[in-house]
Amino acid sequence: MGLAGKVLTLFEGIVKGDRASLSRGITLVESTRLDHRKQARELVSACARLERPRSLRIGLTGTPGVGKSTFIEAFGMLLLSKGHGAVDPSSSRSGGSILGDKTRMQDLSVAQGAYVRPSPSRGSLGGVARSTMESIILAEASGYDICLVETVGVGQSETMVADMVDMFVLLLQPGSGDELQGVKRGIMELADLIVINKADGALEIPAKLTRTEIANALHLMVPRRKSWNPKCVRASAVTGYNLDRVWTLIQGYFDGLRLSGEWDSLRAGQQSKWMWREVHNLLMARINDDPDTRGFAETLKADVANGSVPPSVAAEQIVEMFLSSYSARQIKTNSES
Amino acid sequence: MGLAGKVLTLFEGIVKGDRASLSRGITLVESTRLDHRKQARELVSACARLERPRSLRIGLTGTPGVGKSTFIEAFGMLLLSKGHGAVDPSSSRSGGSILGDKTRMQDLSVAQGAYVRPSPSRGSLGGVARSTMESIILAEASGYDICLVETVGVGQSETMVADMVDMFVLLLQPGSGDELQGVKRGIMELADLIVINKADGALEIPAKLTRTEIANALHLMVPRRKSWNPKCVRASAVTGYNLDRVWTLIQGYFDGLRLSGEWDSLRAGQQSKWMWREVHNLLMARINDDPDTRGFAETLKADVANGSVPPSVAAEQIVEMFLSSYSARQIKTNSES
Repeated sequence: MGLAGKVLTLFEGIVKGDRASLSRGITLVESTRLDHRKQARELVSACARLERPRSLRIGLTGTPGVGKSTFIEAFGMLLLSKGHGAVDPSSSRSGGSILGDKTRMQDLSVAQGAYVRPSPSRGSLGGVARSTMESIILAEASGYDICLVETVGVGQSETMVADMVDMFVLLLQPGSGDELQGVKRGIMELADLIVINKADGALEIPAKLTRTEIANALHLMVPRRKSWNPKCVRASAVTGYNLDRVWTLIQGYFDGLRLSGEWDSLRAGQQSKWMWREVHNLLMARINDDPDTRGFAETLKADVANGSVPPSVAAEQIVEMFLSSYSARQIKTNSES
Repeated sequence: MGLAGKVLTLFEGIVKGDRASLSRGITLVESTRLDHRKQARELVSACARLERPRSLRIGLTGTPGVGKSTFIEAFGMLLLSKGHGAVDPSSSRSGGSILGDKTRMQDLSVAQGAYVRPSPSRGSLGGVARSTMESIILAEASGYDICLVETVGVGQSETMVADMVDMFVLLLQPGSGDELQGVKRGIMELADLIVINKADGALEIPAKLTRTEIANALHLMVPRRKSWNPKCVRASAVTGYNLDRVWTLIQGYFDGLRLSGEWDSLRAGQQSKWMWREVHNLLMARINDDPDTRGFAETLKADVANGSVPPSVAAEQIVEMFLSSYSARQIKTNSES
């Protein structure tokens, strides 16, 4: 399938590393308009077919106040100084705050080789997931070799992002184990590296204690990777303390993935999972777009809620209705043409 | 829709409280044969339409060795002595051990008013979920006012069962917080009541310590219900210690649900969720049953795994293939008839 017109121009721009083209490409994959989806599929497919070295896809999370933006700013500058092109395809636009806003990341966003891209923080989790995945593919086609995907540290989005990246980094601030215990367990289990940020000034000693507590807790958990045991390290985005160490650990993690062959199986598993998830999302969207089926599901709602219609029976009726309504439309289209 | 033949006979038997009919009914809902599914839908629908007081649906879990079977046996006998009919529609048949086998629950399984039913421990999680849900509906139609649904305490099945029951009980044995911390957190967060079993003999003191530790941990968690804060209690299935207290706490939990109106919204939310989950399962089964689509997905597999085809693009192609293959078959059927 050859590319043409707008899509070809975008593709050529992206491959050259042109930022404006990448921005426009990401805007395209964020759109849900049917004609845009068609173009986005062509563009993303072309980018995926390029032979590029694998980028390091790194998820980054932490509760509000932990200093995520400052950390990404400082860490990103460090990467740039080492010649890497870091990109965050899921930072926030005006509306939301998936990532700190551009004004707080001034150095990084104007630095040569770095690309900070606001992406929608609204919309369904599935929709954001798809556009983030596709944005990563475009950014990789544009030559960025590190993709940072940030989330807010609460709720479902961490699991989603953990399924999308190679490595998951959790930012914590110095604090007592009790505080951490209640909130962080589910997310701690996803983390390959935990960074105790703000290890400077008055928090230097508390940060040491927190690191020890977390390191002990990590021993009790089953590691997610055969080639890596989760680590915990103190750092300070403000003083720059241990940022180099963070990068060394990240490299060690990826060395393990590479040498063990785990990286291949990780990516293969993730990508297959995403495909089937997206099949689900698309079918649900189709059901929702079909007025007959949507109306029918609406009439069943109360009876399912009060238990007088079994959920399994209602589900079979909805599926029947959806499929027969779809083929009726096809038959009608066929007989009209 | 009137019932006839086999389904009518089963329905009448179930409504009368006949155990053999209930057993055969559950066998029917466990079958995946198309004609069986049709009959099962009719039967479950008729049962759901009955005006019955709501049964208490209680999920019960605990790691192997915690004494689940003994606990259910002792606790079930206590319920029977109070005039309740307890049923466990998800205990295990020969193949598995979702619940202790019948031989270990002799008193309960022969007691008047109790019904212990082995159900399949194999098959997909979605399939087991559907048949368990439907078994509960049949058991309720048969007059059982308490349904115990047991799981093995590891993996995904707890979340599934927690979405299916009104209350979730976790059985733990006396042990150090460190041991409990690593393994149990995700499941602890689902628990409305935690029972430290084996609080007898040499384990009496350790059980007290464990109870205190767990109770402290529970304080740090966000309660799942507005009307109830999770509790932790010691008990012994062997000596019978505190089993009455467990039952009092369960009743207190359900009083809270009832008085707050939370029970209605809980059930309504669960049932709607199950309906959409089952829509998903059915559509995935249809895709898998369609040779064209399955073959197409198979050819995409390697390219999706190595990243040269984006998962989102592959998904859109699979959905298109599935729907057009479905309508092509309908059109063919139409033109032949």
